[in-house]
Amino acid sequence: MTSAGPQFVSSRDNPLLKDLRRLAQDSTAYRKQGRVWLEGDHLCRAALQRGLHPTHAVFQASYWDSAGHQWADAGGKAVAIEDGLFASISGLESPARMGFVLPLPAQPALQADAPSVVLDGLQDAGNVGTILRSAGAFGFGQVLAMKGTAALWSPKVLRAGMGAHFGLRLVEGLDPAALEKLKVPLLATSSHQGDYLHKAALPWPCAWVFGHEGQGVGAALAERAAHFVRIVQPGGEESLNVAAAAAICLHASAAGR
Amino acid sequence: MTSAGPQFVSSRDNPLLKDLRRLAQDSTAYRKQGRVWLEGDHLCRAALQRGLHPTHAVFQASYWDSAGHQWADAGGKAVAIEDGLFASISGLESPARMGFVLPLPAQPALQADAPSVVLDGLQDAGNVGTILRSAGAFGFGQVLAMKGTAALWSPKVLRAGMGAHFGLRLVEGLDPAALEKLKVPLLATSSHQGDYLHKAALPWPCAWVFGHEGQGVGAALAERAAHFVRIVQPGGEESLNVAAAAAICLHASAAGR
Repeated sequence: MTSAGPQFVSSRDNPLLKDLRRLAQDSTAYRKQGRVWLEGDHLCRAALQRGLHPTHAVFQASYWDSAGHQWADAGGKAVAIEDGLFASISGLESPARMGFVLPLPAQPALQADAPSVVLDGLQDAGNVGTILRSAGAFGFGQVLAMKGTAALWSPKVLRAGMGAHFGLRLVEGLDPAALEKLKVPLLATSSHQGDYLHKAALPWPCAWVFGHEGQGVGAALAERAAHFVRIVQPGGEESLNVAAAAAICLHASAAGR
Repeated sequence: MTSAGPQFVSSRDNPLLKDLRRLAQDSTAYRKQGRVWLEGDHLCRAALQRGLHPTHAVFQASYWDSAGHQWADAGGKAVAIEDGLFASISGLESPARMGFVLPLPAQPALQADAPSVVLDGLQDAGNVGTILRSAGAFGFGQVLAMKGTAALWSPKVLRAGMGAHFGLRLVEGLDPAALEKLKVPLLATSSHQGDYLHKAALPWPCAWVFGHEGQGVGAALAERAAHFVRIVQPGGEESLNVAAAAAICLHASAAGR
C-alpha cells in the first residue's frame, strides 16, 4: 500500500465509487474504462500470485479495519469505503468485502498453433467462467470468444473463472473468418454424428468449439469443424450443461495426449 | 385448464401471490408448503412430459393474453397475474413469464444398489442443478444429498436442473450414517491419491461423492470412500469447478460400462 494510508470514501457521489459501480454492474463497462473489477479475496490473491497488481485495492471500511493489514503488499492505492456504500458496488449475488481494480490486459493476437477453446455465443457468465477454469486445467492455453459470447472480463465471468483468466491467452469479439488463422483442427460435439468421444482418436493440438446454451454451435463454425464426436449418454436423451460437456471433452483431450 | 378461465390477480396482498413469493424466493420454503415453484416454460414443459401436472399454472397477464392458449392442456388452476405484480414473484436473475406450482414429490427411500451421486455440502444452486443433469444423462438414477447441501427442490436448483429432477430418485437431508444402507462402492476424487481416472478400472454400479465447493468432501464421507481417483491436469494445479469435475467422473463411469 502507499505509505499515506487508505483514502476514505463516504460520499455516494464520489467519482471513483461511480466508476466502480458501473464496472461491477455493467458486464461490458471494462471495455470503456480499460480496467476490470476483481471482487473477492480469492480472485484478488490469484491475481497477485500471477504478479498482477491493482491500481486500486478497495475495501469495505469495517473489513479494512480488521483485515486490511493482510493486503499491505498488494500495491496500488488503498481505498476504504463506508460499509453501506461499499455494498452498493457489487453486482454479484453474494457480494464480497473487497476487490481490486486492475488494468485490462491488452488483447493478444490469436496464436495459430495453440490448443484452444472456441466459445460460440455462450450467454451464461457462470458457464463461461467454468469453461475457462477447465481450459486452464487441461492445457488449453488459448480461449477464442466469438462476437455475441458473454464478455470475458465481466465481474461475473471473472468470479466464476476463479483466477483462470490470468493464465490464459484470451481473445474476444472474433468473427468466424478470424478462425481461418487457426491452424489446429476444430472439434465439436454432436448429438447424432461422429465417433463416441471415449472411443475417438483425438488430434493434438486441437481446438474445441462450444456453442450457445440453447442453440448450440452456429452454422458458420460447424462448417469449419474437422471432427464431430458424441458423448455417450446411457441415461437417455437428457441434455448436458455446456460447461459440463466442455469439461468432459477437454479432459478427454488431456487424457489422450 | 379449468373451463372457468383464469383467475385474475391484481392485488399485492392476494394470499396465493404471497405464498408464491415465498416459494420462489426462499430456497427452503417448499419444505413448509409441500409444493415447489417451477419457473419458465422449458421447465414446465419438462414436467408435463413426465406426466406431472401443476396445482396452479401461473402467468404474467400479458403473456397469458398472447400465449396462454399454448398451455390449455397443462391442468390445474390457471392464474393470470398483473404484469408488475408477476415480476415481484421471481427470485431468479432472469425472471420468466410463467410458472407452475407442483406438489412436492414424496421423498423416496434410499435404494441400496442404485448407481448414485452423493452431494456432500455443495452450496451453489447452479452446480447442484448441473450435477443433477449430468447424473440423469449418465445413468445415475439416484441422488443423495447430505444435510447442509443446497435444497434440491429450490427454484434455482430446479432451473439449473432443466427437468432432470423429474427423472431422478432424489433423497435429501441425509446424515453420513444413512449411507451405510448404500451397498455400492463409494468413489471420490482426490488431488494426491489413487489412479488417474482415465486409467482406472471403475466399478459398476457405484456411487460418486462430490463435496463442498471450497472444502471438498468431508471427513465422514471420505472415510467411507472405497476408491479415490485423480483427474489428470496437465495445465497445472488449477482447480476445477465441482460440477465440471462431476461431469468428467460420471461420464467416465458411463463410458466404462
